[in-house]
Amino acid sequence: MLIYGDIRSGNCQKVKITADWLGLSYDWHPVDVVAGQTRAPAYLAINPMGQVPAVILDDGRVLAQSNAIIRYLAHGSALLPEDPYLQAKIDEWMFWEQYSHEPYIAVCRYQMKFLGKRREELEAWRLTRGEAALDLMDQELGRRPWLGGDRISVADIALLAYTRLAGEGGFDIAPRRNIANWISRCEAELGVESRH
Amino acid sequence: MLIYGDIRSGNCQKVKITADWLGLSYDWHPVDVVAGQTRAPAYLAINPMGQVPAVILDDGRVLAQSNAIIRYLAHGSALLPEDPYLQAKIDEWMFWEQYSHEPYIAVCRYQMKFLGKRREELEAWRLTRGEAALDLMDQELGRRPWLGGDRISVADIALLAYTRLAGEGGFDIAPRRNIANWISRCEAELGVESRH
Repeated sequence: MLIYGDIRSGNCQKVKITADWLGLSYDWHPVDVVAGQTRAPAYLAINPMGQVPAVILDDGRVLAQSNAIIRYLAHGSALLPEDPYLQAKIDEWMFWEQYSHEPYIAVCRYQMKFLGKRREELEAWRLTRGEAALDLMDQELGRRPWLGGDRISVADIALLAYTRLAGEGGFDIAPRRNIANWISRCEAELGVESRH
Repeated sequence: MLIYGDIRSGNCQKVKITADWLGLSYDWHPVDVVAGQTRAPAYLAINPMGQVPAVILDDGRVLAQSNAIIRYLAHGSALLPEDPYLQAKIDEWMFWEQYSHEPYIAVCRYQMKFLGKRREELEAWRLTRGEAALDLMDQELGRRPWLGGDRISVADIALLAYTRLAGEGGFDIAPRRNIANWISRCEAELGVESRH
């Protein structure tokens, strides 16, 4: 498998974490998001959506969208249960991540870390929604050990990627003990190096 | 099945279109988004994410997130092929819809139709990204009859919902002939009343 990605991107890290945990072999083709390489014609020919990550499978077929990719790679593994309802509860979190978490947590981080903005320069509504997303995660992780239920799944990987980087976007995880503990559990379970 | 939804919401219409096409029986429990009912404690007890739609299945289990719901309902039907890669290509469009289409097309429509804004009052970046989303759809629908490939799928339902309402958000579908023709095909295939 060939992974097109920018390793600084949480969306790309999702694919690396999943592939590493599953023991899949791959080559990593770097694409520099900040330099605009996702909008270059050569890359658009691979992924017309103009985003990373994208993968080319060993049979030459292409797949884009981080959560679609990790869900596909996890098919048949312990990261994606077979039961359709349990899968749907995992999908629920992965769609929520793309709509209600990533546009706030990841975008604030991008603006601070890569565009050099200070927290005071971020849009207030974006910070407010990011805080609300983290509050919801903290609440729900008080009710179950993993987002999808009793076992770790691709839902945890999808949310872990940017949640563990939230501090770089001006968010404070430490007071949210359920999230902090869940991050530690995820990192231990997935073999991801801790940032603390 | 009990569907909690606001029929004016494209996200809720996805569930109705899917359930109707599949011939599922359901009761519709109205939730007024504009009046803030999705944030009421009674609703948050059902769906802590505070969004519509949500469904309560006949066995009492709850599921939220429009695309997770329609994917679950379509399991085993012609709207979701069994092949994991074909499913992943459908997921690709559904995740793209939530990240790169709905926040522009649907939010502009919400601001114009329900908040009474004029097109000139909308955020320019939101309009620009909405136009780009429609351009991408028009390009890709020139390459295949349905978003997921040779057959209609839940990906088409996920994108149809707000694309057919895009005019209410200040977008012009008519010059994008591939989209316009696809909308007609979807409406005919799904038994959805045309808006033209």
